[in-house]
Amino acid sequence: MYKGLIDHYRSYLPIEDHETIISLCEGQTKLIRATNLEKMLPGLEIYLKFDGLNPTGSFKDRGMTMAVTKAFNANSKAVICASTGNTSASMAAYAAKAGMKSFMLIPDGKIALGKLAQAVAYGAEIVPITGNFDEGLDMVKTFCENHPVTMVNSINPFRIEGQKTAAFEICDDLEDAPDYLMIPVGNAGNITAYWRGFKEYKSFGKSTQCPALFGFQAEGAAPMVKGHKIDKPETVATAIRIGNPASWQFAEEALKESSGRVQAIDDDTILKYQCLLASTEGIFAEPASCISVAGLFHAYENKQIEMNSRVVCVLTGNGLKDSDIIMKSGFEMPSVKENFAEVQAQLLRGI
Amino acid sequence: MYKGLIDHYRSYLPIEDHETIISLCEGQTKLIRATNLEKMLPGLEIYLKFDGLNPTGSFKDRGMTMAVTKAFNANSKAVICASTGNTSASMAAYAAKAGMKSFMLIPDGKIALGKLAQAVAYGAEIVPITGNFDEGLDMVKTFCENHPVTMVNSINPFRIEGQKTAAFEICDDLEDAPDYLMIPVGNAGNITAYWRGFKEYKSFGKSTQCPALFGFQAEGAAPMVKGHKIDKPETVATAIRIGNPASWQFAEEALKESSGRVQAIDDDTILKYQCLLASTEGIFAEPASCISVAGLFHAYENKQIEMNSRVVCVLTGNGLKDSDIIMKSGFEMPSVKENFAEVQAQLLRGI
Repeated sequence: MYKGLIDHYRSYLPIEDHETIISLCEGQTKLIRATNLEKMLPGLEIYLKFDGLNPTGSFKDRGMTMAVTKAFNANSKAVICASTGNTSASMAAYAAKAGMKSFMLIPDGKIALGKLAQAVAYGAEIVPITGNFDEGLDMVKTFCENHPVTMVNSINPFRIEGQKTAAFEICDDLEDAPDYLMIPVGNAGNITAYWRGFKEYKSFGKSTQCPALFGFQAEGAAPMVKGHKIDKPETVATAIRIGNPASWQFAEEALKESSGRVQAIDDDTILKYQCLLASTEGIFAEPASCISVAGLFHAYENKQIEMNSRVVCVLTGNGLKDSDIIMKSGFEMPSVKENFAEVQAQLLRGI
Repeated sequence: MYKGLIDHYRSYLPIEDHETIISLCEGQTKLIRATNLEKMLPGLEIYLKFDGLNPTGSFKDRGMTMAVTKAFNANSKAVICASTGNTSASMAAYAAKAGMKSFMLIPDGKIALGKLAQAVAYGAEIVPITGNFDEGLDMVKTFCENHPVTMVNSINPFRIEGQKTAAFEICDDLEDAPDYLMIPVGNAGNITAYWRGFKEYKSFGKSTQCPALFGFQAEGAAPMVKGHKIDKPETVATAIRIGNPASWQFAEEALKESSGRVQAIDDDTILKYQCLLASTEGIFAEPASCISVAGLFHAYENKQIEMNSRVVCVLTGNGLKDSDIIMKSGFEMPSVKENFAEVQAQLLRGI
C-alpha cells in the first residue's frame, strides 16, 4: 500500500529513521499519454504529468510533505508562508495533518477563489497584506528569524528535495528519462527540483539520460527571458506571476546543463491551450500548467524539438483551483429550455 | 506504468480485446490512513478512500471510462446525460478524449460552479432546462431511443461495472476487505457498485470477507431512510440531492445482504464534518463526500460499530468542485495589514 513519497523514495531524501512523517499520500500522480496531441504534433511521443491530482491539487504537496515533516520534527510551533495560492493551500493541509498552526500572507489581496477556500477549510489563519509577494516574503523571513515558526516558502531547502521525486516517478513510469521536459517557470523551484531529480536518478543508475528542460514563463512575468527582474508581474496564470524567482540561478544552471531553453508565452495563448488541452485530452489544468503545452506547440513549430522524441509536459495544478477563469472567458449560458421539443431542437442542431 | 482501471482490472470487466479503451488514467486513488480521526474514535482503524483525486475530481470517472469506451466502440455519435454536476463533468472529459460530442442537461439551472466550468472547458454542449433531475432524465431517455446517441446516466449498465473497481482497490491496498464501508448515497449506483465489487473479489478468492455497508443520505434527500420518494429533494450536498434513486432496489439488497444500514444526516452536520475533515486530516472533499465521515461519527456514538474494526470512508468528490460552500459558510476576511508591525501583531496573537 502506497504511503506517500517520503516513504516511497526514502533512500533518496534527507530523512532520519526516527522522524515522524507527515503525509497525505502525495505523489505517484498519473503520467497520461496524450494521444490526441500526438495527432497534432506528428513524430512525438507525448505524456502529461498531471500533478494537479496531488491531495491539495498541485505539485506543491511534494515539497510540503518534506517541509512540514521537518518543521514538525524540529518542534516548530507553526508554519508560515507568503503565497498567491497553491503553496498556502498545501501548507495548510499538511499543517492540519500535523496538528500545527499555519499562517498565510496574501499579497495584494489577489488569490484564486478555490485556493483561498482550501486554505480556509484546512484551518489556516489568513493575513492579507497591502504589499506584493516579495514584500510579503521579506516579512515572513523577518518574523521567522525571531520566533519558533518555520517558513515553508520555496527557499525552505526541503521543498526542492520533495519536489525532485516527480522526476523519479516519470523515470519509473517510462523506464528511463524522457528526451524533453516542458515545464512552467514561476519561482523556478520546480525546474530546479526536476533537474536535481533527473541528475540524481541517472547517477544512481536508474536512468540512462537526462532530458532537455524547456522552461516557459508568462509574457508579463518573464524575468528569465528578459534578463531582469519584473517589478509588477502580471499574468492570468497566477501560479507563475513572479517577477524575481527565488531559484533563478539554479534554474539558469539547469537550462544550461540540460541544453534547454526558456521562452515567454502570452496570456491569450495560455488560455487557448488550456481549452485545447481540456477539449482534446480531457484534462483540466490551471492556466499556469497549460503553458507547458502551449510551449510544446511553440517549440515544435519552431523546430526546436527533434523528431521521434519522447516529451513530458508538466501540469502543475488542477483546473478546479481557478474555475472562474473559464466562466470569465466568454462563456454564455444557452437559453433555458421549457419542454422536450425545445430540448430536442437544440440536440438535433448539435449532433 | 499504470494505464487506467480497464487496463488494470480487465479480466473483471465486460470488455472485449478488440475494443479501443477511452481512459484518463482514472482509478488507483489513494487510501489514506486517518490518524487524527482515529484519535477521536478510539478502537477503530480508519481509512479515507479519496476518489476526488480521479482525473475530473470524482468517482464518476470509474464508470465513465467504461460507459464512453462502450459508446465509442458501438459507433455512437454522441453521449448525453442529465446531471447536477459530477456526471456531466466526467462525461465531457471522456467524450473529449474519445473525440465525441457530449450534451449535458442541467436541471433547475442548479449546478456547482466548479463542475459547470469543467464541463464547459471539456467542450460539452450545455442544455439548461426548467424541469428537475427526473424530468431531465426522462427527456434524455426519450431522445436516445430515437437517435444514435448514448445515455451515460447511471442506468447505463457499464457505469456500475467500472465503479466496482474502487472496492477492488481497497481490498488490494488492505490485503482484504475492511469490516465496514461508510458511503454517501444519492442515486445509489455507487453503493450498488461497491457491493458488487466486494462480492466478486471475494468469489475470486482475492478477499476473505465483505464489509457491512453503512449508507448515508442527506436529511432533505433521504428517500431510502424515509421509505418513499422525495418530490423536492433539498440539501447543501448537491451531489446526492436525489429524491428517487435509480439503483434504490439494488442498494436495499446490498444493505440487507451486508447487514448494513442507512441513516440520514442533516446539512449542518455535513458541513461541520467537511470542516473537521479538512482541518484535522488535511483532506478537502465536497459536502456529499463528507457525509460518510459524519456518518461514521454518528454510528460510533450510537455503538453500531464493533471495536477493533477496520473502517473505510468513501470520499466521492474533490472539495474544489464547490469552493463557494466554504466562502459562504461564515468566513470573514481579516483586515488588510499595511506594514510589518501590523502583520507581526496578528501573528503573535495567533501562535
